[in-house]
Amino acid sequence: MAQPSIIFYDIPSSSVIGHQPWSPNTWRVRYALNIKGIPFQTVWVEYPDIEDVCKKIGAAPTSPIAPHYTLPVIQDISTGAVVSDGPLIVEYLDKQYPNTATLFPSGTVALQYAFVDAHITAISPIFPFSIPRVNEIINPHSEPYFRRTREASFGKKIEEITPVGEACAEGWEKYKDGLGKVDGWFKKSGGPFITGDYVTFADVTVASWMVCLKIIYGENSQQWRDIASWHDGRWDGLVNAFAKYQ
Amino acid sequence: MAQPSIIFYDIPSSSVIGHQPWSPNTWRVRYALNIKGIPFQTVWVEYPDIEDVCKKIGAAPTSPIAPHYTLPVIQDISTGAVVSDGPLIVEYLDKQYPNTATLFPSGTVALQYAFVDAHITAISPIFPFSIPRVNEIINPHSEPYFRRTREASFGKKIEEITPVGEACAEGWEKYKDGLGKVDGWFKKSGGPFITGDYVTFADVTVASWMVCLKIIYGENSQQWRDIASWHDGRWDGLVNAFAKYQ
Repeated sequence: MAQPSIIFYDIPSSSVIGHQPWSPNTWRVRYALNIKGIPFQTVWVEYPDIEDVCKKIGAAPTSPIAPHYTLPVIQDISTGAVVSDGPLIVEYLDKQYPNTATLFPSGTVALQYAFVDAHITAISPIFPFSIPRVNEIINPHSEPYFRRTREASFGKKIEEITPVGEACAEGWEKYKDGLGKVDGWFKKSGGPFITGDYVTFADVTVASWMVCLKIIYGENSQQWRDIASWHDGRWDGLVNAFAKYQ
Repeated sequence: MAQPSIIFYDIPSSSVIGHQPWSPNTWRVRYALNIKGIPFQTVWVEYPDIEDVCKKIGAAPTSPIAPHYTLPVIQDISTGAVVSDGPLIVEYLDKQYPNTATLFPSGTVALQYAFVDAHITAISPIFPFSIPRVNEIINPHSEPYFRRTREASFGKKIEEITPVGEACAEGWEKYKDGLGKVDGWFKKSGGPFITGDYVTFADVTVASWMVCLKIIYGENSQQWRDIASWHDGRWDGLVNAFAKYQ
């Protein structure tokens, strides 16, 4: 087996989901490393420890406000580079490892950044559903941190973020509508991926969200069965197409 | 002069702005036709007449709800095709006139549609400013229609849509922040245009909004002076780069 040249910092989950990686943000880099075939070693960091670890290895904050430190972060042993933030990490890998699959082909970088913004806007109705679920699948050491920050952001108890009754059905329908927009973009591509036949960071972003929903809910959950049944099975198909990069 | 092969349906303005075209949606097609060098003839249609004209020439509605008819629409004399909706018109022109500049290069169609969505989300804080201004510069025949539909959409009198006092300054700052996001995408491109060095529909979309704001407010207005001063002069520069296509 090849020696790992990259240390990849990710956030662990508990035994509730079998300790699988679960974060869409870190999955983008995990997929990217696997697509490129770059050997890496995962270091698991609990939420309350992210800031200290980042400062210790010299990783930049991803927001200057506070400042705020997040994962994914990578450390490239061969160059000494430490890079934060999913898209920037993948740009770095494209540049540093030019003989691997390019995820930001020339001329598409700005378009792909706009795609990522449009995608998160479109799927944002998932947050009130996914965030309380994430709180159930992370480790006890991370839970109070995650709960505190998400409760502050939503202005309510984490148990009260997911709507109930009619509002729940409406919220879930809104998420389906948002995914319908993403489906509309895919339909314009003329192929299974956003550029047509080859994978770029845009696909990696969509697939990362999908694989994480499948992981946090479980493939036999009503949530994943719904999603897998929508838009002619596009989302399950995408996760399956990416299975070889997991 | 070449015979026009395209009839281009656009919405007129009054003498207040010298009867210039003013709609960002129709400007995208105007720019595209000029970039491609396809001769066209403009037919001016007032708002209350759009539906009747579209039905008469066989133009599809752009929304199935109601159904709703909008401009731009083109009629291609050489093929008999009638196409509605800016992006679809430009896709048609790319396909039908392959020896002209391609605005949706292969592999970028889905990314550009996502870009257009991300762009309109980013700049949406302009609406409370631009819509009441548009009401002042269209013809008297269109004004009651425009007023009625926009007042219904905002739930207030058109004269009350633009915020005043502190809320006005805050709203304008929000628009600047939204443009900052668009500026961030451009910075990722490594060139003056979204793909780098060549113009695509994404640039045409941004330029169309900018030229329209310059036209409806006037180049000596405080609004345009503000915009032209932001983000290292990117927006004025973009309008100037497109001047040869006006």
